[in-house]
Amino acid sequence: MLKLIKKRQEKVGLSPGTLVHIGEKKTDRTGITIVDYDEAQFQEQEVNTVEECFPFKDTPTVTWINIDGLHDVDIIERLGIYFNIHPLILEDIVNTGQHPKMEDFEDYIFVVIKMLSIDKEGNEINAEQISVLLGSNFVISFQERPGDVFDSIRERIRKGKGRIRKMGADYLAYALLDSVVDHYFTILERVSDRMESLEEDLVTNPVPATLQSIHRLKREMIFFRRSVCPLREVISVLERGESGLIKQSTGIFLRDVYDHTIQVMDTIETFRDMVSGMLDVYLSSISNKMNEVMKVLTIIATIFIPLTFMAGVYGMNFKHMPELELHWAYPAALIAMATVGVVMVIYFKRKKWL
Amino acid sequence: MLKLIKKRQEKVGLSPGTLVHIGEKKTDRTGITIVDYDEAQFQEQEVNTVEECFPFKDTPTVTWINIDGLHDVDIIERLGIYFNIHPLILEDIVNTGQHPKMEDFEDYIFVVIKMLSIDKEGNEINAEQISVLLGSNFVISFQERPGDVFDSIRERIRKGKGRIRKMGADYLAYALLDSVVDHYFTILERVSDRMESLEEDLVTNPVPATLQSIHRLKREMIFFRRSVCPLREVISVLERGESGLIKQSTGIFLRDVYDHTIQVMDTIETFRDMVSGMLDVYLSSISNKMNEVMKVLTIIATIFIPLTFMAGVYGMNFKHMPELELHWAYPAALIAMATVGVVMVIYFKRKKWL
Amino acid sequence: MLKLIKKRQEKVGLSPGTLVHIGEKKTDRTGITIVDYDEAQFQEQEVNTVEECFPFKDTPTVTWINIDGLHDVDIIERLGIYFNIHPLILEDIVNTGQHPKMEDFEDYIFVVIKMLSIDKEGNEINAEQISVLLGSNFVISFQERPGDVFDSIRERIRKGKGRIRKMGADYLAYALLDSVVDHYFTILERVSDRMESLEEDLVTNPVPATLQSIHRLKREMIFFRRSVCPLREVISVLERGESGLIKQSTGIFLRDVYDHTIQVMDTIETFRDMVSGMLDVYLSSISNKMNEVMKVLTIIATIFIPLTFMAGVYGMNFKHMPELELHWAYPAALIAMATVGVVMVIYFKRKKWL
Amino acid sequence: MLKLIKKRQEKVGLSPGTLVHIGEKKTDRTGITIVDYDEAQFQEQEVNTVEECFPFKDTPTVTWINIDGLHDVDIIERLGIYFNIHPLILEDIVNTGQHPKMEDFEDYIFVVIKMLSIDKEGNEINAEQISVLLGSNFVISFQERPGDVFDSIRERIRKGKGRIRKMGADYLAYALLDSVVDHYFTILERVSDRMESLEEDLVTNPVPATLQSIHRLKREMIFFRRSVCPLREVISVLERGESGLIKQSTGIFLRDVYDHTIQVMDTIETFRDMVSGMLDVYLSSISNKMNEVMKVLTIIATIFIPLTFMAGVYGMNFKHMPELELHWAYPAALIAMATVGVVMVIYFKRKKWL
Amino acid sequence: MLKLIKKRQEKVGLSPGTLVHIGEKKTDRTGITIVDYDEAQFQEQEVNTVEECFPFKDTPTVTWINIDGLHDVDIIERLGIYFNIHPLILEDIVNTGQHPKMEDFEDYIFVVIKMLSIDKEGNEINAEQISVLLGSNFVISFQERPGDVFDSIRERIRKGKGRIRKMGADYLAYALLDSVVDHYFTILERVSDRMESLEEDLVTNPVPATLQSIHRLKREMIFFRRSVCPLREVISVLERGESGLIKQSTGIFLRDVYDHTIQVMDTIETFRDMVSGMLDVYLSSISNKMNEVMKVLTIIATIFIPLTFMAGVYGMNFKHMPELELHWAYPAALIAMATVGVVMVIYFKRKKWL
Repeated sequence: MLKLIKKRQEKVGLSPGTLVHIGEKKTDRTGITIVDYDEAQFQEQEVNTVEECFPFKDTPTVTWINIDGLHDVDIIERLGIYFNIHPLILEDIVNTGQHPKMEDFEDYIFVVIKMLSIDKEGNEINAEQISVLLGSNFVISFQERPGDVFDSIRERIRKGKGRIRKMGADYLAYALLDSVVDHYFTILERVSDRMESLEEDLVTNPVPATLQSIHRLKREMIFFRRSVCPLREVISVLERGESGLIKQSTGIFLRDVYDHTIQVMDTIETFRDMVSGMLDVYLSSISNKMNEVMKVLTIIATIFIPLTFMAGVYGMNFKHMPELELHWAYPAALIAMATVGVVMVIYFKRKKWL
Repeated sequence: MLKLIKKRQEKVGLSPGTLVHIGEKKTDRTGITIVDYDEAQFQEQEVNTVEECFPFKDTPTVTWINIDGLHDVDIIERLGIYFNIHPLILEDIVNTGQHPKMEDFEDYIFVVIKMLSIDKEGNEINAEQISVLLGSNFVISFQERPGDVFDSIRERIRKGKGRIRKMGADYLAYALLDSVVDHYFTILERVSDRMESLEEDLVTNPVPATLQSIHRLKREMIFFRRSVCPLREVISVLERGESGLIKQSTGIFLRDVYDHTIQVMDTIETFRDMVSGMLDVYLSSISNKMNEVMKVLTIIATIFIPLTFMAGVYGMNFKHMPELELHWAYPAALIAMATVGVVMVIYFKRKKWL
Repeated sequence: MLKLIKKRQEKVGLSPGTLVHIGEKKTDRTGITIVDYDEAQFQEQEVNTVEECFPFKDTPTVTWINIDGLHDVDIIERLGIYFNIHPLILEDIVNTGQHPKMEDFEDYIFVVIKMLSIDKEGNEINAEQISVLLGSNFVISFQERPGDVFDSIRERIRKGKGRIRKMGADYLAYALLDSVVDHYFTILERVSDRMESLEEDLVTNPVPATLQSIHRLKREMIFFRRSVCPLREVISVLERGESGLIKQSTGIFLRDVYDHTIQVMDTIETFRDMVSGMLDVYLSSISNKMNEVMKVLTIIATIFIPLTFMAGVYGMNFKHMPELELHWAYPAALIAMATVGVVMVIYFKRKKWL
Repeated sequence: MLKLIKKRQEKVGLSPGTLVHIGEKKTDRTGITIVDYDEAQFQEQEVNTVEECFPFKDTPTVTWINIDGLHDVDIIERLGIYFNIHPLILEDIVNTGQHPKMEDFEDYIFVVIKMLSIDKEGNEINAEQISVLLGSNFVISFQERPGDVFDSIRERIRKGKGRIRKMGADYLAYALLDSVVDHYFTILERVSDRMESLEEDLVTNPVPATLQSIHRLKREMIFFRRSVCPLREVISVLERGESGLIKQSTGIFLRDVYDHTIQVMDTIETFRDMVSGMLDVYLSSISNKMNEVMKVLTIIATIFIPLTFMAGVYGMNFKHMPELELHWAYPAALIAMATVGVVMVIYFKRKKWL
Repeated sequence: MLKLIKKRQEKVGLSPGTLVHIGEKKTDRTGITIVDYDEAQFQEQEVNTVEECFPFKDTPTVTWINIDGLHDVDIIERLGIYFNIHPLILEDIVNTGQHPKMEDFEDYIFVVIKMLSIDKEGNEINAEQISVLLGSNFVISFQERPGDVFDSIRERIRKGKGRIRKMGADYLAYALLDSVVDHYFTILERVSDRMESLEEDLVTNPVPATLQSIHRLKREMIFFRRSVCPLREVISVLERGESGLIKQSTGIFLRDVYDHTIQVMDTIETFRDMVSGMLDVYLSSISNKMNEVMKVLTIIATIFIPLTFMAGVYGMNFKHMPELELHWAYPAALIAMATVGVVMVIYFKRKKWL
């Protein structure tokens, strides 16, 4: 069963804003990397203590702080205090049971988004929570474990490819969202492949395991939809550009991500429709197969039952059964039986029952 | 059957605003506790008559009056008159068949919310009505019976933990709502556990009792949804902060509760989808099992019917049946029968019917 | 079949505003009662001609004219002309096929509402149309037949109980609506009782009649919903208080009725969900029962078919069947048969088919 | 199959505004009638050429031009040019595959509406497109064939009955719409009658033809809904009275039509719900009936199979079967068989399988 | 399986605005044609390099540049730079996995629309992406492959038919959209034909292949809906005329396309409803047919089983079976058997089981 709810029992009764890590611990140590750039310069470093990030807060360059691992709430709390983040936001960051959402404070925007990944066999979809804090000249991103989904962005910054170095922190935040949404398409492709192979199974050899696969698919679509659906609203609000933190030039790009999100949602809906269709096909083909078996078997039984009756008649022990004495009676009886059998088969064929 | 409607026959025809307790009487005596605090001081006391609460009305400190037990409408009426509460509100407080709702009078805000609890075996969800009246410097909460859900809040006030002592009555009201909503997660976890064990039953040994459990689950989800759904609107209205009674700083916290409510609703919807899926799996696995039985049995019958016919033929009493005389005829007949049987079994195996 | 449409054939082709009574004639004579009151005085009288009502039109007191019976369109027309009611409204009053609706003219507000009643056995829900005209100081109510639903209001006016005598015509109109909506709860309770007993039947002894009951329930819920659903909008518009005829103090009470309507609708929806669930349970329990029968029977047949074959073999008339000569052959054959039977039974038990 | 789409292949690739008649040709010649009236005077005439209508355009009286038959696009084009109608509107008039819609040009309002009729047996619903052009003092109506639905309006104008002669062109247009919508009720009544008789069939004798009828009904409801649904929006827009062509006094009447449309829609929805219910009842009663047959038959077979086995045992040819020699053995065997049979019947009865 | 998702793996990780052709390469070379006209003059030419289009940008005449083939991203990039198109728009043009959408920049409007085609056998619906860029005096259209859907427009321009030469670039863009939407009707007609033939198959001879066809139809409707649905919003936005690029006179025509889109959507919905209905009919007719077979067969078996039992009784070898000695016993037994058989057949007929 896909985990639809994170255990948070230890949370109940605590004061709001108390930081408690909810979710699986997916990495051992908290990794902190800093990327600092503007159009002209660039530096990247891995640091050990969160305090090393602080000097970057007030530089005019764009600073991207990335935190891998959320279990060490202390680090996050210190960061939060220095960057003046509301305790409830910090609480959301370490509680991995959040749905995608956006909060617009005046000084910063907070976005929660779900990074999805699929295992090698393409059988299970996992979700990782990614939180992004966008300030006027910094972006802080929080991941549950070190991942490679942001690598291409880091690469683009390093090499100064595209327009990323020329634009501000808002564009960087957009790039992070965009890379997560783009990744959804990869997963949809994997799912699509699986659906195709399931479809083939459905036609050639529907077995109970096919049903299991269909149901797993169905449930994954529920899970997928749940992780992506609120994102539409999130990006839509960002795009409408009511926050001063997001420049109009970035708005166009956000509209693009918005379109992608719509496409992802739409594809999920279509997949859901198709999975329902597959379920119908499976059930009717199984019952078809069963009916075929039952029909043929019943027909065989039905042909032999009258014949057995005829044999039974001539097996009776009446004294006076004149036909028993006749020389040709036995072959005649056999022929009669064969005739009855053939007539019934023909009749069944005519009726298209056979 | 979960009670979906409370008997209110005695109510029909009475003037609106007449106080009649509708619902089960869940406690013997009405308990009244008062907690009075500000950042500097704190006092807590249990009182016997409602009049003892009155002096606290006009103190500048935050006063929290908690009433356990709604059957003594007289107490509630006296309280209502003193605190100048509209008769319709008092009527709603003692009628436990309310849905979650909010009424904004200028002097106070009235909120009805459903406290859910689940019994030890995790089999039945019960609802208790909690009404909260928020005035400028007091909060009055009404519960159907003494409960422990507000204990942690009382504890936080006592110890001065968190920000609760520093903030006003609106924050206290928020804390009450928050603790109720937080409790929903606990119940969802319990339900989730039950679903997991049901899922296992479904795969390993689906019996009619499984169906009963699925249907009970389905109904509980209907019940749960019904208790929580209107809450979304309630908190949304509170959060938008149109009332002067709720400060902006508390608005942020209410938004947090709002997000939690959305998550609860969303999880319920997902559970409903999953329960539907489980029903489908159950039905198709039961019919699968049945089909399997029928198929094997029909096959056995089908194999023996032609054999019985053959035996019947040689049981006929014709005078002239030359093969009966032959010495090897009997073993030959047995071999022929065995052959027919084996051929049919092979045929069935080929066709994958066996 | 619940009548979902009223015959109105005679109506087609007539000029709009022509008064034609559509619906069953439920009372013989049109009864007219007048209640006239203010805080100080009160009078009540039954009159014979509609003209006797006219003097009350311009008194400063609140006048409530109640008409029982709609078939005498002439009376209603005369009343309408005197009170200056739009012909289309009069047409709506006598056409009992209306849905709940509200029309706001400047001088008066017109409200159509459905009064539901349930017969003694609790088996059939009937609807009666009630029209209410609210003017600045008068209320005219039209009922299809004399009923007792407004008796408690009359009583409250007579005795000066509650606030009704102190408030205006708008409060009276509210009281009428409130009593109708309150009555819905009574019906829901009756339906709820029936559902409980149906549920029990479902578990203990599901028979085709149960299915019939479920379907009747389903249809009644459709009927109920249809009668109540538009009411929500009607009361919502009234409550928003855009008409000068409704004072703000009455608005609070209308909000209360609105909440009740929402609760009724919500309960109906829940009942519908539950009825669907009951249908599923019924169908699966019936098919379960059927499967049980078929399974046991097939098993019995299957056990005896091989045994019959064995008996058939030893009934063959071959000359040379050495075992027939053996002294212990017959008991041995019987034992063999018994063994085969027992083995099959054990096998079936093992497989949990028996 | 109800035609859901009109062939329009010849249309593809033509310039927009090119007049091509799409739909069946339902009348041989185009009939043109003119009715011209005000409160004082009235004239009615049938004309042969469209040019004869032109003088009426600028008279102060209300002029109603009615065109029966849309295949002669030339007539409609000439009319359109003289009355200054947009080519796209003319295109819509002759294309009978339109959905109900409204276009508000400043000089005139264009309304498309579907006139439904049902054949004598009440089995098939047909739609005819009616277009209405409302100018400041003229109404032009287009019908696919001469019909009698507008006769009663013509009669009312002739006799000066009702308020029609006193009011303007907008009221005439309203009267046309009203008569079409009123006619829907007639059809709903016919459908309702058919549903009642179907219901009876369902209970007394469900046969495959019943299923066909249910499905035809379902499809007709789809067709009906499709023809009426957009009308709601059309009339709503008209009623809101944003066009100067519609006076406020007529607005009240349009609101009445609007209410009727809502009622029609609502009834259709209810019918759809009921048809679904009937389908469920049909399917479960058919499967019930089938199960009954199978059960009884299987039971008969099951009773005789053990008996046949017993007979088979005593038909064996063993030399040493002592009981065969006993004098009372045969009657004893018969009695044993009878006993087994009776015991099984009793057992089945007990289990309520018989 | 209809491709619901286009492979875009190579896209992941690239900077937004990087042009990568996503989709099948449907033509070998990129064809560029230019049509330039105003009311007085007209020229048309096929060019080899995109640079030949550039001079037309600033002419006062309307210029229509049509590009067939999207795989050569270089051509599109050069065109985009010269015409000052946003990189994200260019990216959308070459990514054929877009949904219909509209982007309104100040200088130009960008519209993506899906051109659908159906193969000869009418079995498969294919989608081609068409992008249209509308500037103040130019239109650039992009197709995946050379097609003939725009030929009729080209013809109308050449011959100066209709109003196209008199109007601006916005009307040309409208004409392109209109021709695509018009084409949808052609496809709907094809689908409608297929549905009719399927309906016939359903009644006369439902086979598993019918089920396959129904499911294919269902899926195509999903696909169709998905391609058309967002178009409604797109055209609605265009029509509201908020962009200065679209003149009011063209707005009327766009409203016409909007109506057509609504009709297409509505027809698709109706088809979906009908396909669901067909599925129900298929399933119930198949199960009906199966039940018929099983019933008749079971009846045959049931008639002969008691007869076989009777024969078995007289085949028993008891010494003392007096009736065996009787002269008329054998014919009597035969008559008895025949009687039992006939009685059972009559009984079954009475019960309407046969």
